[in-house]
Amino acid sequence: MEEMSKAEYLAFLNAPARCGKLATVREDGRPHVVPIWFILDGETLIFTAWHTSVKMKNILRDGRVAICVDHDQPPFHYVLLEGKAELLDASPEASRQWATIIGGRYMGTDRAEEFGKRNGIDGEWVMRMVPDRVVAYKNVTD
Amino acid sequence: MEEMSKAEYLAFLNAPARCGKLATVREDGRPHVVPIWFILDGETLIFTAWHTSVKMKNILRDGRVAICVDHDQPPFHYVLLEGKAELLDASPEASRQWATIIGGRYMGTDRAEEFGKRNGIDGEWVMRMVPDRVVAYKNVTD
Repeated sequence: MEEMSKAEYLAFLNAPARCGKLATVREDGRPHVVPIWFILDGETLIFTAWHTSVKMKNILRDGRVAICVDHDQPPFHYVLLEGKAELLDASPEASRQWATIIGGRYMGTDRAEEFGKRNGIDGEWVMRMVPDRVVAYKNVTD
Repeated sequence: MEEMSKAEYLAFLNAPARCGKLATVREDGRPHVVPIWFILDGETLIFTAWHTSVKMKNILRDGRVAICVDHDQPPFHYVLLEGKAELLDASPEASRQWATIIGGRYMGTDRAEEFGKRNGIDGEWVMRMVPDRVVAYKNVTD
């Protein structure tokens, strides 16, 4: 098991497209974790989320989040990102724009428009998360 | 997107071996999430963890956890399990026994002994988690 360098974990987060597992905390103190689609904009993670989803209610109450991105086959790699998630843009235009880019990343560029239309709707907000702490390991089972 | 039946999500959790993403809450209220290896014993998840790891410190303070297991390629499936994690057995014998079983699940039965010896050591505790709430969806992008 070895630590990834910054260049390595940014490359790992970039490609191939893997879901992040976004952990937040519920009002009663229980943890919550769900998969998200995201894209890197420099070192910032951009994702969209329905404004009344559990994860969004949690983020709007307390923006502190943790995101895990992993390769779950031997030799196993993972990145844990911790930081604060915040609203980037709640407009339907921004939602459509980012949902198209992110949809293309996960579904293939030929389906980007389709998923931009499907996910980029009024009420789906664009969020950003700037990691302030990163833990990244490669080849965990070597 | 369709809900999985109980039989479907148990089958999904069973095979192929996917890492769970275990979310816990730190003492200061921040979420934490890391990949874990686990195995189903009936409907109970069994995993091992180093007794002073961040996740274990969090669990020993507040056993409420959330675990996400997903297939992160189209058409995307995921299971979210919520419940309480607790100590099953802290003995090195139990640790070795479960680490062997779980190691075989993730690394192949030919490497079970190797990973039982590697992971099943004094201080690696055997934990169980009985889900009290399950959210399970298949074919999210269909």
